[in-house]
Amino acid sequence: MSESSSTIKALVSGSKQSVNLPSQRFANERHSPESLRLALIEAQYTLRDTRNKPRGRGVLILMSGMELAGKGEALTQLRGWADPRLFKVKARLPVPPHSPLWLQDAALLPEKGEIVILFGSWYGDLLQARMTYLQEQKRKDAKNTKKINKEKSNVDHSLVPEMTSERFRSEVERLHAFEQDLRAQGITVCKCWFDLSWERLQERLDTVKKSEEHWLHLHGLDWRKKDQYDELVKLRADLGIDWIDINGQDPTERDLEFGHIVLSALREPRLPTAPANRRWKSAEIPAALLAPDQAVLEKETYKARLKDAQAKLAKLVHQCDRRSIVLVFEGMDAAGKGGTISRIVEPLDPRQYQVFPISAPEPHEMRHPYLWRFWSKLPVPDFVREHAVTNLSIFDRSWYGRVLVERVEGFVRAGEWQSAYAEINHFERDLTSGGTIIIKFWLSISSDEQERRFMARQETPHKRFKITSDDWRNRKRWDDYLQAAADVFAQTNTLEAPWIIVATDDKLTARLAVLESLNRRLEAVLKS
Amino acid sequence: MSESSSTIKALVSGSKQSVNLPSQRFANERHSPESLRLALIEAQYTLRDTRNKPRGRGVLILMSGMELAGKGEALTQLRGWADPRLFKVKARLPVPPHSPLWLQDAALLPEKGEIVILFGSWYGDLLQARMTYLQEQKRKDAKNTKKINKEKSNVDHSLVPEMTSERFRSEVERLHAFEQDLRAQGITVCKCWFDLSWERLQERLDTVKKSEEHWLHLHGLDWRKKDQYDELVKLRADLGIDWIDINGQDPTERDLEFGHIVLSALREPRLPTAPANRRWKSAEIPAALLAPDQAVLEKETYKARLKDAQAKLAKLVHQCDRRSIVLVFEGMDAAGKGGTISRIVEPLDPRQYQVFPISAPEPHEMRHPYLWRFWSKLPVPDFVREHAVTNLSIFDRSWYGRVLVERVEGFVRAGEWQSAYAEINHFERDLTSGGTIIIKFWLSISSDEQERRFMARQETPHKRFKITSDDWRNRKRWDDYLQAAADVFAQTNTLEAPWIIVATDDKLTARLAVLESLNRRLEAVLKS
Repeated sequence: MSESSSTIKALVSGSKQSVNLPSQRFANERHSPESLRLALIEAQYTLRDTRNKPRGRGVLILMSGMELAGKGEALTQLRGWADPRLFKVKARLPVPPHSPLWLQDAALLPEKGEIVILFGSWYGDLLQARMTYLQEQKRKDAKNTKKINKEKSNVDHSLVPEMTSERFRSEVERLHAFEQDLRAQGITVCKCWFDLSWERLQERLDTVKKSEEHWLHLHGLDWRKKDQYDELVKLRADLGIDWIDINGQDPTERDLEFGHIVLSALREPRLPTAPANRRWKSAEIPAALLAPDQAVLEKETYKARLKDAQAKLAKLVHQCDRRSIVLVFEGMDAAGKGGTISRIVEPLDPRQYQVFPISAPEPHEMRHPYLWRFWSKLPVPDFVREHAVTNLSIFDRSWYGRVLVERVEGFVRAGEWQSAYAEINHFERDLTSGGTIIIKFWLSISSDEQERRFMARQETPHKRFKITSDDWRNRKRWDDYLQAAADVFAQTNTLEAPWIIVATDDKLTARLAVLESLNRRLEAVLKS
Repeated sequence: MSESSSTIKALVSGSKQSVNLPSQRFANERHSPESLRLALIEAQYTLRDTRNKPRGRGVLILMSGMELAGKGEALTQLRGWADPRLFKVKARLPVPPHSPLWLQDAALLPEKGEIVILFGSWYGDLLQARMTYLQEQKRKDAKNTKKINKEKSNVDHSLVPEMTSERFRSEVERLHAFEQDLRAQGITVCKCWFDLSWERLQERLDTVKKSEEHWLHLHGLDWRKKDQYDELVKLRADLGIDWIDINGQDPTERDLEFGHIVLSALREPRLPTAPANRRWKSAEIPAALLAPDQAVLEKETYKARLKDAQAKLAKLVHQCDRRSIVLVFEGMDAAGKGGTISRIVEPLDPRQYQVFPISAPEPHEMRHPYLWRFWSKLPVPDFVREHAVTNLSIFDRSWYGRVLVERVEGFVRAGEWQSAYAEINHFERDLTSGGTIIIKFWLSISSDEQERRFMARQETPHKRFKITSDDWRNRKRWDDYLQAAADVFAQTNTLEAPWIIVATDDKLTARLAVLESLNRRLEAVLKS
């Protein structure tokens, strides 16, 4: 266990943005309860005032630790000291395995100006899975050596992934990356571990009332078993050094310490925006963007092949019904995103898919990390699987807006869009590792063809709604968009979530190319 | 069956706001596909422009009917004609019984400016429950008379309520009331029933591909059984006359008809605000508000009784763990809502409850019916019950804001707040009939005591945040608030969701009174 612990420590301290150690956090300040109270309230209101500011902050306090160490009591005292209305207390329920660990947590995250105190965290499922795995291993070992243990496991192994030491490490690493991205977007994540010695825990267990005992079984742990307790102590060390230990022994000290920790979290300044990388090297613009292929398809050939491709797609989507499929469409205006999407959904039952046309974020969405509005749109897998029929999400424009329109129009600073690629890669990797299939299409049109289509739109009554002055304005920044697209490919064309560039000067060729390559990809994924 | 059908018809046509019959809707207008296309697009954009307007509209199209009648195809054609990005297509999943039929649908409703096309609807569960019940009855009859039928029912009767004819009628009535409230708040609800003759249905079933068959079993109906088909035809008649039948026989006609129906729904003007009732009779202000009781409690007595009451509450909340509890706190500023809520949650585990401080709605919330932001906050029962631990929701101010602050400050017209009582009663009745326990507290303070507390707040550092200029302003409208409160009691003090008025000039007496009456009510409900 110790090797994994040191690996993770190295990982955390080696990350680019340094983590403040708990002791540094409030070494200089020690309040009496009365002055703490005032300081907390002031900090709450200061934080709340950042609600609609571009550099606003949110604060997320994770509460984990040993049972009966006093999490609830510490929170009650905190609510008594400060303005209880400005704490949102939420409980995080266990999430079924095989879904991105944090996806369902989008609704739990604080907006700018908010403080969320979260009971349980995305580490809970992980710890439980690891504990279960370790117990199973022990059971197996015992069985192998003594052949006497007949106790049956009640764990369904088809559902719970084997939480080996290696897998555990990589999951912890993923969560750290997720939290680091939250921090970069203005959410202070403060993780409190309420600790309690074995002896004191046993004493407190003796005094628990019958009616309260159900709280002790929430995570399937038996707090009367010393070996499980010891295991948890070891695991806690593996969670990383950015957890703050709070000793639950003495209630008064505990509450005061928790209050100080929350105070310092409330006051923690927002991480500075990553500075622009002066050595940023723009990617070379691929030929497929500069001069899209001009192949033309006969209408009759198109019709026949389209019909085949659509039938095949319907079959493949049905075969994927235990997995989510996410399609992303990007490209210049008038490149044919809408028409292509229509051909994809045509053979499907409307209950199977959902199309999300993405435009500028709403004010309340701007109070969250910019990926948040996509997290909250994505279908939650497994959870409601029994009834779920929708497994295809199609994005007509997407989270790539951050590194396309927002970059080109200067809505974000260079440091922000430059770091967005990594955040997007994390996001997509978390989805794909949870079983989601992601395929991204860039529809590549030539400048001449775009102009022709713009003109046609202005002249055709039922197409006029498709063209606005924005479109003409964007057209003037053609080269900037090409460069931004080239950088997107260079930075985010991953094995798990690849980009497919499709030439669209000929609409029929383009639609067929999208459908056929989509089919190929789905077939490949299903086989693997 | 025919008696129930006529009852419902009477109910619908007897409702205050008349329902436009389908034939009236587009009798005057018959478009060619090309002119329909243009009209649809224009109507879509006109609707979208109402997005942020006070009298903005949303449109909800429900799609139900016989299988294979062409719902999906009609939608595909509609998407082809109009701007597909301006239709949100959603699928509604079945909801477990015993939850308010529409509660989980909050996320499916259109905002102002939006069009939502919904596959399946809140009638789906109802129809299915009724069909199941009828099948069960037949089975029982057969068993009783012939004693030969050994086929076992696979329905768990502890979960599915007996959907008797009477219950079915009352559920339909409830849904009509819900829809009527939606219409009054600016959502056009247009219900399309895709019909298909028995013969044609059987023909189409013959041509269904193996890979598509799963769609036919979604609702547990066997479309090959004539008796089930006939049953559904009868039930459809009982759903009310505001459903629009679309004949699925001829695809071209069907799509054109659906397009016209959607067009007329897009264009349907918002229902006028209910006119102010000139004969509105203000309720008499109860003595408990004019002169709150002045009883005073000894600190020692308080402490002892509080401890008992809190222990009891913890036990009761745990006993209620299969039911949601909703507490509402209203009252003048400084009446002690916050302090009382703190005493309620003190003995509980923070995972058991959630406190919602309610203030003015956000701009994006204003695009929904005003109750919407509460629908979306309430815990969804049963659905995730296996893991759910939070069953107590406490509202520090609530939906009564509509008939208190919004009324007094003139944010809504007389007709609006006057009709809000009925909407609130519907809402609460739907919750309680789904098993939720609602208890509403009015904390009654005297004007003198309020002034004393305001002054104290200004003088105490850690209380200063609690007082703003708004509070002094509201104080000037004291009598108006008293009158509004009196009307609230007169209109919304129902058996299922009662108001409890608690005198709060003595804080200790008040806190204890709230806790003890809360306990009494929970005990009574648990016994019943």
